[in-house]
Amino acid sequence: MPYNTYDDEIVLIESQASIGDIIKIECNELYYTGMLMPRYQYTNQKNIVIKLHNGYNVGLPIKEITKIQVIKKKSKIDSISYSIRKNDAARPKILLLSTGGTIASSLDYITGAVSPTFSSDDIKKLIPEISQFANIDTEVVFLESSENILPAHWKRIAEIIITKKNLQYSGIIISHGTDTMHYTAAYLSFALVGFPIPIVLVGSQRSLDRPSSDAAMNLISTIQFITKYKSQGVFVAMHHGGNDDVIACHIGTRVRKNHTSKRSAFQTIGGKPAFLINDGHITKNTDKVFNHKYEAKLNLDPRVALIKYYPGYNPELLEYVIKCNYRAIIFEGTGLGHVGNILYKNIKHANEKNIFLGMTSQCINGFIQMNVYESGRKLINLGITPLNMIPETALVKAMWALGNSHNIQEMKKIMLKNVAFEF
Amino acid sequence: MPYNTYDDEIVLIESQASIGDIIKIECNELYYTGMLMPRYQYTNQKNIVIKLHNGYNVGLPIKEITKIQVIKKKSKIDSISYSIRKNDAARPKILLLSTGGTIASSLDYITGAVSPTFSSDDIKKLIPEISQFANIDTEVVFLESSENILPAHWKRIAEIIITKKNLQYSGIIISHGTDTMHYTAAYLSFALVGFPIPIVLVGSQRSLDRPSSDAAMNLISTIQFITKYKSQGVFVAMHHGGNDDVIACHIGTRVRKNHTSKRSAFQTIGGKPAFLINDGHITKNTDKVFNHKYEAKLNLDPRVALIKYYPGYNPELLEYVIKCNYRAIIFEGTGLGHVGNILYKNIKHANEKNIFLGMTSQCINGFIQMNVYESGRKLINLGITPLNMIPETALVKAMWALGNSHNIQEMKKIMLKNVAFEF
Repeated sequence: MPYNTYDDEIVLIESQASIGDIIKIECNELYYTGMLMPRYQYTNQKNIVIKLHNGYNVGLPIKEITKIQVIKKKSKIDSISYSIRKNDAARPKILLLSTGGTIASSLDYITGAVSPTFSSDDIKKLIPEISQFANIDTEVVFLESSENILPAHWKRIAEIIITKKNLQYSGIIISHGTDTMHYTAAYLSFALVGFPIPIVLVGSQRSLDRPSSDAAMNLISTIQFITKYKSQGVFVAMHHGGNDDVIACHIGTRVRKNHTSKRSAFQTIGGKPAFLINDGHITKNTDKVFNHKYEAKLNLDPRVALIKYYPGYNPELLEYVIKCNYRAIIFEGTGLGHVGNILYKNIKHANEKNIFLGMTSQCINGFIQMNVYESGRKLINLGITPLNMIPETALVKAMWALGNSHNIQEMKKIMLKNVAFEF
Repeated sequence: MPYNTYDDEIVLIESQASIGDIIKIECNELYYTGMLMPRYQYTNQKNIVIKLHNGYNVGLPIKEITKIQVIKKKSKIDSISYSIRKNDAARPKILLLSTGGTIASSLDYITGAVSPTFSSDDIKKLIPEISQFANIDTEVVFLESSENILPAHWKRIAEIIITKKNLQYSGIIISHGTDTMHYTAAYLSFALVGFPIPIVLVGSQRSLDRPSSDAAMNLISTIQFITKYKSQGVFVAMHHGGNDDVIACHIGTRVRKNHTSKRSAFQTIGGKPAFLINDGHITKNTDKVFNHKYEAKLNLDPRVALIKYYPGYNPELLEYVIKCNYRAIIFEGTGLGHVGNILYKNIKHANEKNIFLGMTSQCINGFIQMNVYESGRKLINLGITPLNMIPETALVKAMWALGNSHNIQEMKKIMLKNVAFEF
C-alpha cells in the first residue's frame, strides 16, 4: 500500500526514511529515537509515529518536527542466515505442529499489525538452534490468531495428534497463540489423557521477527524438557518470572493467562508450575505422577454457556440460554461460589430442564465451598454442582464431558472425576 | 429444630455433646478433635460432622465411632462482656453503616450456615475496642449477603451518605459482604467522587463470632486510618498478606477479590494498595493525590451487559443482548483485548444500534492494547472502545456513566475520562 500524498509522506520522502528504519526526530527542541511506524489506517495524517526503545509508540505532530535523521535502515528478515542441521538418527525426533498465533506471526510493516504468517517450517528455519537438540518434523494444522480458535479447531489438533502415536516421536510441540492457549490445553488434557508422549503448547508474547521475542527460548527449553524428562501429560511452556532465564511448564488444566503483555503471562492456579527449565536443567516442582492410562475421547458438545455473575445481571439472559437448548451452564460466581437470589427461580427452571449446572468462582484463586453460607446451600439445593476448577477449565471439561456421555447423569459423574489434575 | 430419632442423635445424646461443643471422637483407632457441627439438612444421618482446628469439616461414620468425649462446652456469644466507652467530644466521630455480609454474620448452629444477622450496633458491641479511637455512630442500611446486592442497593448507600456530609464525621465505614464489595466500591468511587471525608468499605472473610475472624482488625485499622490520615477517597480495607498484622487500603476502582477464602483476598490490580496500616502506623504507598472536586452523581442505568468471551461463545447470545435494548456492552476479551472473528457481524450490528461497546481483558493484569494485532484493529474499526480498567470496574462505570449522560457520545466521553483513578 503506497502512501498517498499526505503531509507525513512529504516529510518522510524528504528525509529518505522508510517504515521500519530507526530514525531520530527533532521536535519542539527534544530528540526522539525509535523505529518509524506505519500510519494506522484509521487515524489522521498529522503525526509521525515511532516506536521507542521501551516499546511504547509516540506520535509527533508533523508541523512541530524540525529534523528527521535516519540512524539505521530496516534490516530484512528474509536475509537472516540460518543453517539447519541435517537429521541424525541418534537424536530424538520431535513433531512441531503450527496453529498460528504470535509465535507464528510477523509485524506487517504496511499495516503495522502483527498477524500469523509463519508455518512451523518457517519457525524451524528462523530458530536454527532448535535443530541442535532433535530432529524436528513440522506440520501446519492451521494458521489462526488464537482468539479465533473454536472448539472444532481443538478437535482438529487432537485428530492429527492421534495419527502420530506410533511414529517414534519423543514429544509433540504445538505452537499456538497465547490468547486462548489455556482453553486448547485443557481440551487436549481431557481428550488425550495419558497420551504416551508429552504434548506441549508453546506460544510467545512477542513475534518471532522482533529482537525481544520469547519464541526461541520457549521452544528450545520445551525441546530440552521433552528430550530430557520424558514425562507424559499436556503442558503449556512459557517464560517464568521477569528474567529471560527460566521457562515454566504448566499442567494444561491448571493454567491461565493472567497478564495481557508480560512474557510470563501464564500462571499455574493454586500451585506452582509442574516443571521449571533453566538453561537445560529441569526441576520437577510437583508431586503429581504423570501415569494416566491412555484413552482418546475427542468428541465435544459446545452447547455449554459460561455465565459470569455480577450485580445487575439480568435473569432474562439466563432464561434465554435455557431457551436456546444449552445442555450445561458453568457459572462464574462470586466468592466461594454464589450468585444473587435474583437468579434462584431461573436456576430452578434450568435444573428442571435437565441442564447441568456447575459453579466456579471469578476470584480465580481458592476453593469453591458452597456449604459455608446460606446462599451456597440454597444453590446446591437448587441443583448446582460445585466445581473446584478454574472457570475456563470447567467450561472446556463440560463441553468434552457432554460430547462423551449419553446423558446428564453420566456427564455429571465425569465432571466430578479428577480426569487430568484439574481439581 | 430438634433432632429426630436418627442414628446420630442417639450417639450424641449418649455422649451429652451438643452442637457447637468441642468434642474428641475415637473412630477406627484414630482421634479427631473439633467442633460438633449440625447435620446439614440435605445429607444423610450416617455421619457425625466436626469442624477441625484447621477449618475443614470431617464426617465420621457413626458405626465406626467407638467413643465421643466432650472437651469444652459451647460458649454463648451473647454472654461476651463488653464495655463501650461513653462518647467523648475530644475524639473524632465516625459513622458505621451496616449493609450485611460476613462481617455482620453469625454461624447458625441450627443450619450450620453463616448468614447476616448483626446490625452495625451489634458490631460496635462485639468489638468494643473500636470505641477507644472514636465516637462511633451506627446505622443499618440493609442486611444482605453481598451476592444479593443489586445496583439499586449501591444507590441507597450513596443516598444515605450524602445526607451525612455536614455532620462533622471524620469518615464513613461501610461494613459489607466481600463477594461484591469491589463492585459497590467502584460505584461509590464514581458516584461520590471527591466526597470530603474518606469512605471505607470493610468486610471480613470469617464471621465475627469465630475466633479467627478478621473483622475486628479490619475495623480497628480502618478507624486508625480515618482518624490519622484524613485522606478523601473511596477505599476497601482488608487483610494484606498472610500474617495477621497488616491491613491494606485499596483504591475503590482498582481492587478485586482474587481469592475465595483467604483473609487477604483483595488485591489492587496493576499496583500496590494505596495505604498499609500496621499496628496504627500508616504508610502511603502511592503517589496519587486524593483531591478530586466533590460532585455527587448518583444515577445509574443497569442496562449494561458484561460478556466474557470464550472459544465456543455463541453469537446468538450477543444478538439477544442487542435485542433486549441494552445500552452498553463491556467485553471481557482475551489477551490484549480481543474476541473471535465469529462475533464481528454482531458487533457491527450492536454499533449500528448505537450501543456503547467497551473492551477489557479476562487476563485481569496488564494493559489493553488493541493496536498490536490485526484482530484488535478490526475490533476498533467495528466500534469497540479499549478500556484500561478491570472488567468489574468498567461494568460499574458504564452503568454510572449511562445514568449521568444524555446520549452515548457523552457517555463515551465519560468512559474515557479518568474519574476516580480507574485507569
